[in-house]
Amino acid sequence: MAQQQYAQDSATIKKIYDNALTSFESYENLRYLTKQIGARLSGSPQAAAAVEWSRQLMEKMDLDTVYLQEVMVPHWVRGEKEIGRVTNSRLLGNVDMHIVALGGSVGTGKQGLSAEVVEVKSFEELEKLGKKKVKGKIVFFNRPFDNTLIQTGSAYGGAVDQRGGGPVAAAKLGAVGVLVRSMTNDYQTIAHTGSTRYQDDVEKIPAAAISTVDAEQLSSLLKEDSELKFYMRMTSETLPDVLSYNVIGEIKGSEKPDEIVVVGGHLDSWDLGEGAHDDGTGCMQSVEVLRLFNELGIKPKRTVRAVLFMNEENGLRGGTKYAELAKARGEKHVAAIESDAGGFTPRGFGLDGSKEQLQAVLAWKPLLAPYGLHEIGPGYGGADIGPLKGQGSVALIGFKPDSQRYFDYHHTEIDTFEQVNRREMQLGAASIASLVYLLTEHGLDGGGAKASK
Amino acid sequence: MAQQQYAQDSATIKKIYDNALTSFESYENLRYLTKQIGARLSGSPQAAAAVEWSRQLMEKMDLDTVYLQEVMVPHWVRGEKEIGRVTNSRLLGNVDMHIVALGGSVGTGKQGLSAEVVEVKSFEELEKLGKKKVKGKIVFFNRPFDNTLIQTGSAYGGAVDQRGGGPVAAAKLGAVGVLVRSMTNDYQTIAHTGSTRYQDDVEKIPAAAISTVDAEQLSSLLKEDSELKFYMRMTSETLPDVLSYNVIGEIKGSEKPDEIVVVGGHLDSWDLGEGAHDDGTGCMQSVEVLRLFNELGIKPKRTVRAVLFMNEENGLRGGTKYAELAKARGEKHVAAIESDAGGFTPRGFGLDGSKEQLQAVLAWKPLLAPYGLHEIGPGYGGADIGPLKGQGSVALIGFKPDSQRYFDYHHTEIDTFEQVNRREMQLGAASIASLVYLLTEHGLDGGGAKASK
Repeated sequence: MAQQQYAQDSATIKKIYDNALTSFESYENLRYLTKQIGARLSGSPQAAAAVEWSRQLMEKMDLDTVYLQEVMVPHWVRGEKEIGRVTNSRLLGNVDMHIVALGGSVGTGKQGLSAEVVEVKSFEELEKLGKKKVKGKIVFFNRPFDNTLIQTGSAYGGAVDQRGGGPVAAAKLGAVGVLVRSMTNDYQTIAHTGSTRYQDDVEKIPAAAISTVDAEQLSSLLKEDSELKFYMRMTSETLPDVLSYNVIGEIKGSEKPDEIVVVGGHLDSWDLGEGAHDDGTGCMQSVEVLRLFNELGIKPKRTVRAVLFMNEENGLRGGTKYAELAKARGEKHVAAIESDAGGFTPRGFGLDGSKEQLQAVLAWKPLLAPYGLHEIGPGYGGADIGPLKGQGSVALIGFKPDSQRYFDYHHTEIDTFEQVNRREMQLGAASIASLVYLLTEHGLDGGGAKASK
Repeated sequence: MAQQQYAQDSATIKKIYDNALTSFESYENLRYLTKQIGARLSGSPQAAAAVEWSRQLMEKMDLDTVYLQEVMVPHWVRGEKEIGRVTNSRLLGNVDMHIVALGGSVGTGKQGLSAEVVEVKSFEELEKLGKKKVKGKIVFFNRPFDNTLIQTGSAYGGAVDQRGGGPVAAAKLGAVGVLVRSMTNDYQTIAHTGSTRYQDDVEKIPAAAISTVDAEQLSSLLKEDSELKFYMRMTSETLPDVLSYNVIGEIKGSEKPDEIVVVGGHLDSWDLGEGAHDDGTGCMQSVEVLRLFNELGIKPKRTVRAVLFMNEENGLRGGTKYAELAKARGEKHVAAIESDAGGFTPRGFGLDGSKEQLQAVLAWKPLLAPYGLHEIGPGYGGADIGPLKGQGSVALIGFKPDSQRYFDYHHTEIDTFEQVNRREMQLGAASIASLVYLLTEHGLDGGGAKASK
C-alpha cells in the first residue's frame, strides 16, 4: 500500500515536471506581467493593472473560486531621477555617482542637500562617533556583503540592517542624510533600492542606496579628503494610502476542503526594472501550480489556494491582511509556501514549523531529490506568509532556488524578464507544485497543533 | 586521528572557498581570454594567442613547471557569413533563416546550392525514405531536445547524433546538403555550430545548423508546400593542419610526486562568440586551482597538473596527444577532472571509475555537501580526459555544474563573458580545487589497478 502510494506520487510528480518543462504559458504570462505591465509599486496604476490582469488570468482558468481581498497600501513615489555627486574632490572635482532613493524615504527638497560625509561600517561605529562628528553630515553606511557565505541570502541578512535602520540611527545623532551601500554581492554601477524605516519621534532624513562601485570610490576619496562634500537630490514623497488587493484563486479539496495549502508570491514590486525575479516569477509559479493541477486532472484532497500578495516590498499590508482574515474566518492552513527568492534553478525548501512537520517533509525527499531538490531542512518561510505563523499548526515553507545571481538584480533596473530562464523558472514551478501535491494528498498531520509555537 | 584529518580537510576546504569567493583574479583572466583574445578555433591566430597568453599566465605563478605539448590540429575556417533562405514559399516568398556551417563542413561553392527539403526526425525515417526521395535534396534533421529531461546534457545526448552523423547518412542516399536543428533547449533565432563527421568513402556534402525558431518555421512551411526550395551558401573549408599546443602547469607533490591529479579544460573554442562557458571557464578554473594552492600555501602530497587541452571541439587531438605522451612516459594518474560543462553553480561530480573509487569519493560527501555539491555519483568524465581511460587505475571525473542554461549559449555567438557570473564560476573553481585537494591528500587507493577496465 505504501509502495503503491509511493509509485503513484512518483508518477504524478513526473507528470508535473514533464508538463511544466514543455509548457510556455507561465513564461509568457511572466512576459506580459513584466513587459506589458512592468514595475508595479504598491499604489501605482501598474499595481492596479497587475491586480486586474492576474484576476482575469485566473478567471479564465476554470478554478473553483477567484476573488480579491481589499487592503489599503502605502503610496510612495520616487519622483525625478536622483542626483548623487561628490562636488569637491581634490583629485577629481565633481564625480557623479549612482544613487537611488530608498523606498519610503523623504525627499531632499528640489534644491537638494550638500554635506560632508562620514563613513561607518556598523551602528557601533556610528555610536562611537557621536553627535559631534555626525551632526550636519551625511552618514555613509558601507558594510559590504560577506561574499564568503555560500547562500547569498545570508550575506543580505548580514548587511540589510544598514538599509532598514540606518536613517533613524543617523538622524538620532543629527545627520542630515544617509547613503547606504547597495545590497548586492556584485560590483556594479547600479544602485539597489529597498525599504527603509522611520520612527515617529525621530526626524526623517533622506536616504539613498549607492552602487557598490561608487561606494568603493567614495570610500577611497574619503580616505584622501575627509572634507569631501556630497550633493544628493531626491524628490521622493509619500502620498495618501491607496485601496489595493490580494488576488486569490483556488481549487477546492475533494476530501478535506477546509484544509488549505497556500502557495504564493507578491504581486507588487519596486518601481525600478520590471520586478521579474522579485517577484514576478513567484506569482506566475503560484498560478502555474493551479494550471498544472487542472491540466493534469489532479484533484487535490485538500484545498490549493494561490495568493498573489500585495505590498510585500514596502509595508507587508497584503500578507498581514491575509492572516487577519484567515484568523477571523477560522481557516485551517496545513501549510503556506512562498516563492520569493527568484526564478532560478531549484535547490530545495526551508521549513519553519515543528520537528514532526519537518520529518514529514523529509520523508518525501526520495521523491524530490531526482529533480535536484537536495536542500530540504529547517529554514525561513517568507515575508508574506510570516503573519500566518502561530495560526493553528500551519507550516511555513520557503522555496529555495539557487541564490547566486539573485542579488545581482534584486531591487534594480536590471531585474527584467531577460534575466529569467524559462527552464529554471518552470523547474521551480514544478518543484512547488510537487510539494503542494504531496501536502494536499497527505497533509502534515504529524505536526500537531503546537507546531509553530 | 580520522577526526583530526576530517577537521583539517574541512578547514582547508573552507579556506579554498573563502579565497575563491573573494578573489577577482580568475574572473579577470576569463575577461582577458574572452574579450582580448576572443573566439579561438583550433589553428586560428587567436588559438595561438591563447596558448601564449595562458603559458605566460602560468609562468608568472611560481609553479614548479610550465610547459607546452606539441600537437598538430585541424584547421577549419568558416569563411563568409552563411546564407540560408527559403526561396519559393507560396505564403511568404523569400524567407531568410539563421544558419551556421557545422564545424568541418565543406562549403557550397560561392554560388551556393538550392534544393528541395525533406524533413526527418531520425535516421530510421531517413532510411525509409530511401534514395528515391532523398536524392538531390537537402535533408533537414529536426528531432528536438527532449525538454522533459532534467539534465540538459541528456537531452543533448539524445539529439546530437543528427549533427555528427547526419551528413554521412544523407549523402549515402544522394542528398546534396544537410540542415540540422540547433542543439539547444531554447527557442532562439541563433544557430548553434558544432562538429560533424565525414567518411572517406562517402561524398562530403555541406551541412549547417539552423536555429530552433527557423527549424519550426521551416517545418511548418514544409507541411504547406513539399516543393519548398532552400538556398544555402557557405564558403567554409578545411586548410592544412597547424602546429598547436596543450598548455600545462604543475605543482609537484611533496610526498608522491609521481602520482598525478590532472585538472583541465579545453583552450580552443568555436569561432562564434567568445568561448566563455565553453570552455573559457573550465580553463580559468583549472589555472585557479593552482593559484588557490599557491596562495593558501597548500603543499599537495601528490602532483597537481593543470592541463589546457587544445582542439577538443573539432578533433580531440590535444586530449589524444596528452594520453599518448602519458602512456609513453609511464606516468601514473590518480585521477583526471575535467570542467567542460560551463561556469555555472556547482551541483556535483560524475565519476567514471571503479566502485571502490566511487566509494572513496562518496566518503568525502560530508565535506562537500555544505557547498551545494550533492550530486556525486557514477557519470561521464569528459572528452579531453577520455583518452586516458584504462591507463593504470586513473579515475575520470566530470565537474557537474547546473545544466539548465548551458545549451542556451553552447557553440553560439552569445557564449560571451557577460553570461558568466563571477560567484558561480568561482564556486566551481573552489569545488574542483577542494576535490583536487582531497585527491592529492588521500589518493584513491581503494581503486586498485583494474579500476577503469
